[in-house]
Order: sequence, then structure tokens, then C-alpha cells
Amino acid sequence: MTIANTPEIAAKIPETMPDGTPLKPLSRVILDRRATSHFKPDPVPQEYLNAILQLASQAPSGYDLQPWRFIVVKDEQNRRRLQKAAMNQAKVGEAPVVIIAIGMKEETKRRADEVFQEAAQRGADNPDAVQQHERQAMDFLEHIPMNVWLNRHVMIAFTTMMYAAEAYGFDTAQMEGFDPAAVKKGFGIPDEAEVVALLAIGKMRPPDKPYPGRFELDRIAYRERYGQPWT
Amino acid sequence: MTIANTPEIAAKIPETMPDGTPLKPLSRVILDRRATSHFKPDPVPQEYLNAILQLASQAPSGYDLQPWRFIVVKDEQNRRRLQKAAMNQAKVGEAPVVIIAIGMKEETKRRADEVFQEAAQRGADNPDAVQQHERQAMDFLEHIPMNVWLNRHVMIAFTTMMYAAEAYGFDTAQMEGFDPAAVKKGFGIPDEAEVVALLAIGKMRPPDKPYPGRFELDRIAYRERYGQPWT
Repeated sequence: MTIANTPEIAAKIPETMPDGTPLKPLSRVILDRRATSHFKPDPVPQEYLNAILQLASQAPSGYDLQPWRFIVVKDEQNRRRLQKAAMNQAKVGEAPVVIIAIGMKEETKRRADEVFQEAAQRGADNPDAVQQHERQAMDFLEHIPMNVWLNRHVMIAFTTMMYAAEAYGFDTAQMEGFDPAAVKKGFGIPDEAEVVALLAIGKMRPPDKPYPGRFELDRIAYRERYGQPWT
Repeated sequence: MTIANTPEIAAKIPETMPDGTPLKPLSRVILDRRATSHFKPDPVPQEYLNAILQLASQAPSGYDLQPWRFIVVKDEQNRRRLQKAAMNQAKVGEAPVVIIAIGMKEETKRRADEVFQEAAQRGADNPDAVQQHERQAMDFLEHIPMNVWLNRHVMIAFTTMMYAAEAYGFDTAQMEGFDPAAVKKGFGIPDEAEVVALLAIGKMRPPDKPYPGRFELDRIAYRERYGQPWT
């Protein structure tokens, strides 16, 4: 087994931005984040890219099945190829790193037994109930459309990755405008995969995008039942 | 228009935990978070629940369409009803707050024009291109299965909410084990909605769940193309 442990991971995670600035609290990270339109060519240091991926890998998932995979595209020619498959969006070619986030329909099931055995070894599951829990998980996956479930889960890790990058002072752009077939073909991605989203990471080339606004809470949050305004 | 502005929101967002402790950096929030099995009855202070919802509402979405809605269930009888619709999971009845996260298929389209007009007014879109961008967005939504797209997007705001709650020192449990039809019926949710996930928020009743493990980066992250290990 090659599954990591959090203290080992924590030891590898930088506690400041690359220039030594302390990390912003999450509340500020969320409020300051904008989808970046243009990037400078400055690279994301490898230590930080590693940390961003490590943190994304620690996201939660149903039955801990971790159906997400990330293809990290840094090579300039590859980014240009990806740009062509992504409605020619300039930021794909400009950003020093673009992550292709995918979900695996079949591999997720093939790795399930390993996940359940590991959880039991770590005391996170009752060893006597592992087989039953594994059957429950497989049964759950049989009864939900896998593309829905994969999108649901890949976005947990994707969002974790986006905020991790922003917390370290990088800028990001999330994208869903791409041709999944072309992305699969161009990057050796198997047919069984669902291509979910792209995340560009780097440093913004100003000006930043203005805040486009959000609905007030009363229009998206309800008290006790649908339609009853929150406040 | 009743769309908020970030400085106004920032003014309402607490900068510490309820006991005055400074917020943990996001890296620690991510590494320390576990799915909570049992909750104490202690309530989540209203100021913090508001902040958690506000932060979730600031998540990004394609074309800023914000298809997410949140039903905040605090009433004990309602939580028991929700528990029954959620495979009788004890934590639903125990946690002082459970959020039902849903996505709206039709309402999202009906509100699109308002979103595009607001973005243009705020300088986030070219007023002369609003109609064209709106047509592009509607065309995009016609060509993607809406349940896939809603799950993708609702999870961005849902994940934002989870980390916001954890950053403020609360514990969370994300759940996808429920009967969507029963949840809709029990909470007045329209047919057009997609029920995506539940989030319980409160304070953990120890012991915390052991870390179940995660795949090493080499097994989920690839360099330049699928299958080429990251490190």
C-alpha cells in the first residue's frame, strides 16, 4: 500500500506564500478570488504545485473512493494543444500550469477494495464489516448515473485545489468550455474517463476582472423549507 | 437588483472563531477535516451560520449563473424528518444544522438575464456583448445534461461552505445517502430541482474518525499526459 498519512503530508506543505507572506484566512481567500482572464508566464514553484496537488488529494469523497485524477500540463506545446481543445481560450496557453481534472468510472471500482482494506487497517472501518460496506458502496454506484457522481466528486477536489492555490497567493481560472473528446485524444485519457473541468494556475496579468455580483442570501438560502427566505 | 458587493460582505464576516481564536490556514483546515460521525447539540451561532452561507454564495460558477440553493434545516422535528429521508443517519438528527444543497434547472435560466445585466453594470462584461454572451450561455446549457452540470456547480459552493465552516472551527459531515424524492416532498422542493448533497454542521462528539488514508500523488496526478506518474 502506498497511501499517505496526514502528518507526513503536513511536513511537506509550505506554511507561507513563496515570498514568506503568511497565508490569508479562508474568508479573505474566498472573497478576493476572481476568475483570472490573463496570466503572466512566471512559473508556479514545484514545491507549491506539489502542495496544491497534495491538498486536493485530501478532499473528502463518498466511501473515500477518490475518483479524481489530475493531469498537470506545463509544457508550452501541450498547453497550446490544450488551448485548441478548449475553445481557444488565451488563458490556457498563457498560464504556466493548467490542470485537467477527470473522473474514472471503472478504475474507481477496481481500486475500491484497496480503499476499504486500508480504512480498516487504519481503524476507520470495522474489519468485520468491510465486505458489507464495500458491497453497499458498489450498490450505491450501480444506482446513480456515474457521470453525475463523478462530476459531483471531482469538483470537491477541484474546488479544494483552487482555494489551496489561491491561499498560496496564486491566481486561478476554472473552465468548463472544452471539447471532452479532443481533450481525451490529445492527452491519452481513456474512454472510461469523464473530463470535468480545467484549472489554470499562475499569476494574474492585471487588470483583475471586476466583481460580477452575486445573489443576495435571501434569494439562494431558505429557512427550514424551500421558498422561505433565509432572513 | 439585490446583488451584494464584496466589501459589504467582508464587513459581515467574522475574522476569528467564536471563542476569538484566529482562523487556521487553509492547508491545516484541509488536513484536519474529517467527516464527523456524531455531533453535540450545541448550536452554530447565527452570525457564523450567516457568514458560512455568505462565503458559499461567493463561489464561482460558469457564466456566474449560481445555480445553487441551500435549505437550512435547524428545527429538531425537521431534522428528524430529514434523517428518515437520509437512510436514518444519526448525524442528521444530531447536528444542530443540516444544509440541503440543491441545483435549479429552470430557475437558473430564468435568472440568467439578470446576472448578465448586473455583470455589465459592474464592468465585468461588455454591455454591447451581453446578449451574445447570454445566448452562448444558454446554448452551452442546452448541450450539457443539466443534472451533470448542476452537480458540478453545486459542489463548488458546497465545498466552499464545508471549508468555511471548518475554518471557523466547526465540524462537518457531507452526505449523499438520501432519497431525493423524499427530501423534495418533505421540504417543498420543486420537481425541477436536483438534490445534490447534505452538509451537517456543528461540533463533533468525540472520538473523531481516524484518517482512512488517501492515494499517493503518483496514483492520481499525472505529468503532461494520462498515466505518466507525477513525480
